[in-house]
Amino acid sequence: MKDFFHAQSVAVIGVSNSPNNMGRIMVKNLMEFGYQGYIHLVGPKGGAYLGHKIFSDVREIPERVDLATILVPAMAVPTVLRQCGEKGIRRVIVQSAGFRELGEGRIGLEKEIVEILKHFQMRMIGPNCIGIINRHIGLAVPFLPLKAESRPGRIGVVAQSGGVGAMMINSLNAENMGFSKFASIGNKLNVDESDLLEYLIQDEETDQIFCYLEGIADGRRLMEIASRSPKVIVAHKSNRGGAGAVIARSHSASLSSDDRVVDAAFRQCGILRTREQRSALEMLKAFSLPQLKGNRLAVISRSGGHAVMAADSAEEFGFQLPPFPPDLIQLAKKHSRAGVIQFHNPMDLGDLFNLPLYHTLAEQTLAREDIDGLLFIFNYQGLMNVEESRKLLTGLGDLMWKFQKPVAVCVFTTREELNLAGKIASYPFFGDPREAVRALALNRDRFKTGPLPFSRRRPAGVDRMRVQQLVEELPSGPVSPEKLAMILTAYGIPLVPWRKLEREEDVLAAAGSLGFPVVLKTAHPEVIHKSEAGGVYLNIADDVSLREAYRGLQKIGPSVLLQKMAEMGLEWLIGGRQDQTFGAVLVVGLGGIYVEVFKETSIRIAPIGQEEARRAIDECRGAALVGGVRGQAALDREALCDLIVRVSWLLYDFPEIEELDLNPVRLYEKGCLAVDWRARKK
Amino acid sequence: MKDFFHAQSVAVIGVSNSPNNMGRIMVKNLMEFGYQGYIHLVGPKGGAYLGHKIFSDVREIPERVDLATILVPAMAVPTVLRQCGEKGIRRVIVQSAGFRELGEGRIGLEKEIVEILKHFQMRMIGPNCIGIINRHIGLAVPFLPLKAESRPGRIGVVAQSGGVGAMMINSLNAENMGFSKFASIGNKLNVDESDLLEYLIQDEETDQIFCYLEGIADGRRLMEIASRSPKVIVAHKSNRGGAGAVIARSHSASLSSDDRVVDAAFRQCGILRTREQRSALEMLKAFSLPQLKGNRLAVISRSGGHAVMAADSAEEFGFQLPPFPPDLIQLAKKHSRAGVIQFHNPMDLGDLFNLPLYHTLAEQTLAREDIDGLLFIFNYQGLMNVEESRKLLTGLGDLMWKFQKPVAVCVFTTREELNLAGKIASYPFFGDPREAVRALALNRDRFKTGPLPFSRRRPAGVDRMRVQQLVEELPSGPVSPEKLAMILTAYGIPLVPWRKLEREEDVLAAAGSLGFPVVLKTAHPEVIHKSEAGGVYLNIADDVSLREAYRGLQKIGPSVLLQKMAEMGLEWLIGGRQDQTFGAVLVVGLGGIYVEVFKETSIRIAPIGQEEARRAIDECRGAALVGGVRGQAALDREALCDLIVRVSWLLYDFPEIEELDLNPVRLYEKGCLAVDWRARKK
Repeated sequence: MKDFFHAQSVAVIGVSNSPNNMGRIMVKNLMEFGYQGYIHLVGPKGGAYLGHKIFSDVREIPERVDLATILVPAMAVPTVLRQCGEKGIRRVIVQSAGFRELGEGRIGLEKEIVEILKHFQMRMIGPNCIGIINRHIGLAVPFLPLKAESRPGRIGVVAQSGGVGAMMINSLNAENMGFSKFASIGNKLNVDESDLLEYLIQDEETDQIFCYLEGIADGRRLMEIASRSPKVIVAHKSNRGGAGAVIARSHSASLSSDDRVVDAAFRQCGILRTREQRSALEMLKAFSLPQLKGNRLAVISRSGGHAVMAADSAEEFGFQLPPFPPDLIQLAKKHSRAGVIQFHNPMDLGDLFNLPLYHTLAEQTLAREDIDGLLFIFNYQGLMNVEESRKLLTGLGDLMWKFQKPVAVCVFTTREELNLAGKIASYPFFGDPREAVRALALNRDRFKTGPLPFSRRRPAGVDRMRVQQLVEELPSGPVSPEKLAMILTAYGIPLVPWRKLEREEDVLAAAGSLGFPVVLKTAHPEVIHKSEAGGVYLNIADDVSLREAYRGLQKIGPSVLLQKMAEMGLEWLIGGRQDQTFGAVLVVGLGGIYVEVFKETSIRIAPIGQEEARRAIDECRGAALVGGVRGQAALDREALCDLIVRVSWLLYDFPEIEELDLNPVRLYEKGCLAVDWRARKK
Repeated sequence: MKDFFHAQSVAVIGVSNSPNNMGRIMVKNLMEFGYQGYIHLVGPKGGAYLGHKIFSDVREIPERVDLATILVPAMAVPTVLRQCGEKGIRRVIVQSAGFRELGEGRIGLEKEIVEILKHFQMRMIGPNCIGIINRHIGLAVPFLPLKAESRPGRIGVVAQSGGVGAMMINSLNAENMGFSKFASIGNKLNVDESDLLEYLIQDEETDQIFCYLEGIADGRRLMEIASRSPKVIVAHKSNRGGAGAVIARSHSASLSSDDRVVDAAFRQCGILRTREQRSALEMLKAFSLPQLKGNRLAVISRSGGHAVMAADSAEEFGFQLPPFPPDLIQLAKKHSRAGVIQFHNPMDLGDLFNLPLYHTLAEQTLAREDIDGLLFIFNYQGLMNVEESRKLLTGLGDLMWKFQKPVAVCVFTTREELNLAGKIASYPFFGDPREAVRALALNRDRFKTGPLPFSRRRPAGVDRMRVQQLVEELPSGPVSPEKLAMILTAYGIPLVPWRKLEREEDVLAAAGSLGFPVVLKTAHPEVIHKSEAGGVYLNIADDVSLREAYRGLQKIGPSVLLQKMAEMGLEWLIGGRQDQTFGAVLVVGLGGIYVEVFKETSIRIAPIGQEEARRAIDECRGAALVGGVRGQAALDREALCDLIVRVSWLLYDFPEIEELDLNPVRLYEKGCLAVDWRARKK
């Protein structure tokens, strides 16, 4: 990827003499951003633009070309690509639209392109994208006119939609953060988001990464890369549901995947997900400050009302507000006009109008051992003391880097003044005390629990070969309960004792050895909702009832499953399915009536280990019941974790198992037992 | 209140020749905002300022004075107020600080002021405030320098903190909305938020009201006024918890009340509560658009990515996206450059670069019968077609008012251009498709369920006189179970059958007539946690066990309560308490183990009627259980509502009942029963 962003010479293919020509805009952007390399222009009609000759064929360029951008009609792309290949160009960006986003008819064209890339060992970004930017060398090839606003920043931007990406750049500039590198990736025919993430994670000019995605090329690869990232990754994954999917097909040819799985996968690998630009910016702002290493916050505010809001928010987000030391309070009081304000933490500067003193107070506060970060709330109208106010704001930035402690600065002023002050500040402003405190909390909590990606260790007592054999023998569709029981048992998943039987006398004999009460169910694989179909007899106490139950089930089929009636326990639902983006997905939730009450489950991408299973349980509403409420004894969380881990490995090892439900799993003070099970094979 | 905002002459008291004098800033603000009345200056040292003579005493002013603003040292305020009274001034604003916010020592000073106001029949805003503004006549007396930015708007602002209020004004200007009237109310010694709300609700220049409050003077009055308001009221009530309370005491002398009660009270009377300025602005933006009368939305977007986001959000917030009609799509396609974009709803304008056509598409869409509102997403860089882009933006505003349908416009551009375009637009811009759709949903849903304030009708079968007598006879502290049972019964609240008894043979006889199984509890009023104290014997099946239980309870005290053992049912907790701001407060939640699982209750300000009780139940997590899950029969919601209504009236009628708990109340398929009860008298 580095060769894309550090190309020393660029050929812009598709330049013409028409004033609306987009190739021309690219050339202008390269000049606006101060590109440090060589620019070559190519267009079939030749001519010249801004003093550069327009070559009619890329192969005519006498010098070496590192990167070509191609914006020609879709049908002409293969020819131009071949010319690039012959010229020895190994990095191309295809901005042309008109590929799979127009429908199935264009898939052939894409296939042709893939072949050409393979033949010439070329890497390609696009098609259907707007291009890339590297602020540090001025490489800027989007085809919409851009302005090289503010300084280069330290945020990398990857966007499946060029429009969204370009607007994110505007916003990063407007928030005084800027960006380091930008890539619009379009249809992702060759280079995808994982390639770019992998690059930006090790790029020295990038500290944080923002991603806008409408689809995910390879969910597991993305997770692997993200979970190794020491840098914050904020991702806006749109195209969440049915309605969105219609558009995406015609936009960037994405297929939508189950949105909750995306949520879970991102959380699991440490990607911060956002649903709107505003919260994305809030996250990026949070992590553009130095790391908050503790929980002790000082608040200094020019307005008492905002100090009250800050105190509310500090409490809401669990911060401590240690008191200011007496010498600092004395210093502040000395300059207070009428002495009508008291100095707690939050400190309300009230009638203290000395701006250089504000700087001193901030500095002395940050120097303190017992303060980990500062929230400074500053309002001014931009009518008086404007220069002094701007100086204070830039000074606060300097203090932040000097002390390596985060200073969240809330600035309230007019729109014009915010714009002007922002241009000279080297850090983002916050628009509200609560937003600032929330950002500090995000910064503080980020490193508390690291991501726990996939488990690497299969649990003990798993007989993979045996299950391999069983699964191979299964027909597609619903799996028969006895076969599934064998599979589950081979993975060490505890089931209530059961027997698959056919003859009445065998049923009676088996019940004798299991011990009453028992449950009798049909073992017919096609019956999915057994209770509704009259296929379950619960709590059978004696031979007479058992015989009756057996006879009742014969109308469904000869095979029955005899189980010991399990004791009551806290009911869980443990299951999963195969997701087309992320593969094996695990689902954990409270079972029984709770399923309907909570309507909430935790999701994980399999396989997971014991600790991640613990987190999955704790995430469930009602997890408090496991700890034992109202004086009841605590339940065996570890046993449930173990079962969850095993289910996750089973789903991972056998993608042929399309769906699996253990519902309920009963959890006891000691151990747990799956009471009913159900699965489908692909 | 009108006399404050429409004063034809103002005396600014506290003007001096010092360059930092705040009285001078007030005079400048009056000039900046183009005040249409007469200005008089008063200050002990006399002199002149901007050509106006500074009188040394307000009584020397020869003309009539409608309003005086007073910014003099706190101790001098009573004298100045008397002078104002003698001059015949009936409206004063005291901006001076130094009253109760400095501590108890200044309460006497405040009392003196109250006496003076009474004597002269004066109304006063403040003390400890920054003043008021009426944009329409240019009356602007805050003591911080302000700029009369943008047009007068239609939002009224009331703020307990001057700093927060002033910054809200900046934000309203920055969001192209402006404001109509502004009042900073400080310590609210005479005029409070309810007075101002009452005024703004009928003010013809105001369409919406924003309130910033740190404390509430009279909760019930506020609720009564708000629930009659046809205008949207957005309130930021801060000072929510313990940490906030410390600051508020020294800032605007507020006492904090239970924050969840504030939440509930606001919801009940239709006030939209916010916790940060950003969401306040989002709400105000939502309601500055015409009312959304249906659920059918059209989305037109210049960027495909934003169209995908809009589709996601439309689905999230329950909007329908009807397809665009063929003639409109034909019109759009005709102008598409390469024809590579398809036109669904959301319509992705893609390579259609004709800005006047955008206007036509918006107009034809709004003219359609099957479209209730439009989301228009427009991004431009401010480098090309700038005039055309701005023209489009102002045109969209005109269309909105022509068709009386909301047009939420998302604008993405550079910071500078956003500033410039905003100045000429007469409506707010949104910064993100999701924010815009959320605002449209808020606008749509606002009128779905009107506020249901206090019930006016006591339910049938309430014997208020009887309870009056019982309550009067009670000592302070815990109420004995049998007295409480009488009180509850007199209000028609169904209890499990019970007897209060003392002698063993009476207990045995009563159990015979109630019928086994029974429960025996201590009737000692001081024992609050009966189970923990060994004061409850459940499920007693026969005489022998009953005798044993009776003897066991004798170690606590001689009195016992015998109850019929109630059948199992869905357990609820119904109770309440007296809140110092809002009075009688009702609490409704699921009981038993659910209390610990959900940790959620609904709160209402009493008294409420049947419909509001229904809403309180439905708000509870787990309310689905009432409807009957998993094939269980539905439970008797109406009976529970009736019980809740009665409890709410009991708490309202008898503020002496400090706390009341019915826990559990068991809900059955038919009826419900309180099984245990507990209360405290003040």
